[in-house]
Amino acid sequence: MEILQQESKIGFQSLRFDIKRIPDTEVIERGLYNSLADSTGAIREMCSHILNAGGKRVRPLLVLYSGLVFSEVNEELIHASVAAELIHMASLVHDDIIDHADIRRNRPSINKIWGNQFAVLCGDYLFAKAFGSLAGNRLIKSMDFMVEAIENMCHGEILQADDKFNYGVTLKKYYERIAKKTAIFLKCCCKSGAAAVGAGEVEVHILGQYGLNLGYAFQIIDDIMDFCGNCETMGKPKYEDLSQGNITLPVILLLNDKRYGDWVRAMIINRDFNDVTTGELINVMNESGSIGRSFKIALSHIQKAKYYLRLLPQSQSTMFLDSLADMLQARVN
Amino acid sequence: MEILQQESKIGFQSLRFDIKRIPDTEVIERGLYNSLADSTGAIREMCSHILNAGGKRVRPLLVLYSGLVFSEVNEELIHASVAAELIHMASLVHDDIIDHADIRRNRPSINKIWGNQFAVLCGDYLFAKAFGSLAGNRLIKSMDFMVEAIENMCHGEILQADDKFNYGVTLKKYYERIAKKTAIFLKCCCKSGAAAVGAGEVEVHILGQYGLNLGYAFQIIDDIMDFCGNCETMGKPKYEDLSQGNITLPVILLLNDKRYGDWVRAMIINRDFNDVTTGELINVMNESGSIGRSFKIALSHIQKAKYYLRLLPQSQSTMFLDSLADMLQARVN
Repeated sequence: MEILQQESKIGFQSLRFDIKRIPDTEVIERGLYNSLADSTGAIREMCSHILNAGGKRVRPLLVLYSGLVFSEVNEELIHASVAAELIHMASLVHDDIIDHADIRRNRPSINKIWGNQFAVLCGDYLFAKAFGSLAGNRLIKSMDFMVEAIENMCHGEILQADDKFNYGVTLKKYYERIAKKTAIFLKCCCKSGAAAVGAGEVEVHILGQYGLNLGYAFQIIDDIMDFCGNCETMGKPKYEDLSQGNITLPVILLLNDKRYGDWVRAMIINRDFNDVTTGELINVMNESGSIGRSFKIALSHIQKAKYYLRLLPQSQSTMFLDSLADMLQARVN
Repeated sequence: MEILQQESKIGFQSLRFDIKRIPDTEVIERGLYNSLADSTGAIREMCSHILNAGGKRVRPLLVLYSGLVFSEVNEELIHASVAAELIHMASLVHDDIIDHADIRRNRPSINKIWGNQFAVLCGDYLFAKAFGSLAGNRLIKSMDFMVEAIENMCHGEILQADDKFNYGVTLKKYYERIAKKTAIFLKCCCKSGAAAVGAGEVEVHILGQYGLNLGYAFQIIDDIMDFCGNCETMGKPKYEDLSQGNITLPVILLLNDKRYGDWVRAMIINRDFNDVTTGELINVMNESGSIGRSFKIALSHIQKAKYYLRLLPQSQSTMFLDSLADMLQARVN
C-alpha cells in the first residue's frame, strides 16, 4: 500500500490546479471562445456548455509550449493550440455518446442534456471548426498531425472495443491501444506546435517523442487510478474500466502472475465485480506488485519524456514541459 | 395527378444509372479506395461496406467537373473530389445514427451492423481522412469550402430538429434549412473543384451559384418525392418526413392554403398519419396545387443553375454540369 498512501498526497486535482494558474491558459481560453463565436442556436449552447465546463487544457498547452521552445508566441501557434483542444472536445463529446456517459467534468454531458442526435452534430461541428482554424491559418503540417491523431484515436477506440473482456490481451496490444487512444494525440500536439513555428524536422521529432512518452505515462497512471481512486483527494476506486471490460496494465500484469492469474481470469469470465471481489482485487494488486510495477512503467516513460527534453536548447518553455512531466511524476512518487 | 404520372417516366434510378456510365466515376472510385486503403480492422470493414454500397457520387462529380471547366484533370482535383465524397459518407453514417436508420443504399446501415459506437468512430475517421487528403495535397481553399459545408450541415440538422412538427414554419426558415442541410454542400463542392485548379474568384462564385441552385432543386424534389414515391419506378409514398415531423415545402404551401390549412394543421397536431389520412393528403396536395407549385419552384432553381453555367466558357464540362441539371429537370417535367 506504500505507493497508494504516498499517492494520496498529490492527486489529479493538484495537477489541474497548477496548470490553471498559468496565464497562458487565458490566451487559449480566449482563442477557444473566439473560434466558436459565430455558432448559433443549439450548437452555440452546446459549445458554451463545453467551454464553461473547463478542463486541464493539456493538449493546447503542449502545442503552445512546444512552439515556444523555438519562437515567440504568435497567432498561428495559438490557432494550432486551439485546434488541438477543439479536436479533444469533439472526441470527448463523441466518447460520451459511445459510453452512454451522463457526466463529464462534473457536469451533465452533452448527450445527457441535448440527446445523442445533437451530440453527434456538436462533435462534427467542433472537428470542422478545428480544421477550419488550421486551414484558415495555413497550418498545413499541424493539420497533418491532427489528422494522424484523429485516425489513431478512432482505431484505438475500436481496438479497445474489440478487446473487451479479453483476458488474453498482451502487453503489446495494450501499448498499441493506449498509443492510439492517447499517446499519439499528445505526440501530435507537440509536433503541431513545433511545426507551426517552423522548427526543424529533428526538433519536431524530439518533441514528438517527449509527447508520446508523456502520453503513455498519462494513460497508464489514469488506468492505475481506476483501481486506487481512494489515493486521490476525492472519490473512491471506480473499477469502471474493468467492469466495462477494459483490461488495463495492472490487470494484465496480474493475469500474467502465477499466483493470481487464474483468480482474476475467473473474475473477468464471470463478470464478478461486486464490492467483495473488487475489494479483494485491490489487495491482490498491491500484494502481487502489479500496481507498483505499473507505476514503475509509467515512471520510466516520464523519465524518457524528460530525457528527450534535455536534447533541446533549454529555456522557460522546456522547463514548463519538464514540469508537466514532474506533475505526472508527483502522482507516482 | 399530371405531374405525378409524367414523373413516373424518369425517376431516381435513371439519374443514378446515367451518372454511373460516366467513366470519370472510375477515377473517383479508385481515389476513394486508395484513400481508405491504410485503414485496418473494423474501420476497414466499415469503410469497405460503405464504398461497396455505391451511391450517385454527385458531390465528387460536381467537384471534378467544376475543375474541368478550367483545367485538365489532375491529382489535386481528384483528391478534392474524393474528399467531398468522404465528407458526404461521414455525414450519412452519422445521420443514420441520428435517425436510427437501419437501411442505407439498400443495405443495412453501419449502425445496424456495427452499432452506434463504431458508427460514430467510422464517421469521425472518414472526416479525418477527407481533411488528411486535402491537407496532404495542400488544397487549402478546398478545405475552407469543406469546413463551410460541414458547419452548415450541422446547423441545418439542428434547425430541422428544432422545427419538428412546427406547423408555423415559414418558407424563409425552410429555405434556410435546405440551404444548410444540402444546397451549401453542393455549392461548396463546385467552388472546391474550381478553386483546386486555380480558377478566378468570379468563376468560383459563378460555379458556386450553379451548385447552390442545383442543391435547392435537389432537396425540394427529394422532399416532394416523399409524398409521391409512387411516381418513382420503385416504391410507394413514404410520408417519412411528415411522420417524423419534418415539415417540407409541399406541406408548408398547403398550410398556407385557406381551404386546406386547418385540416393539415390538425393532422400534424394530432400526429394523425394513418393510411386513410395520408391517402387523403396526397389527393389534397394535388388538388390544391401544392405539389405542382413545389415542382415549379424546383424548376426555377434548375433554370437559375443553368443560367449561371451560361456565364462560363462553354465546354464538355459545362455540358456535363448542364446535363446534371437536365436530369433533375427530367424528374419534374
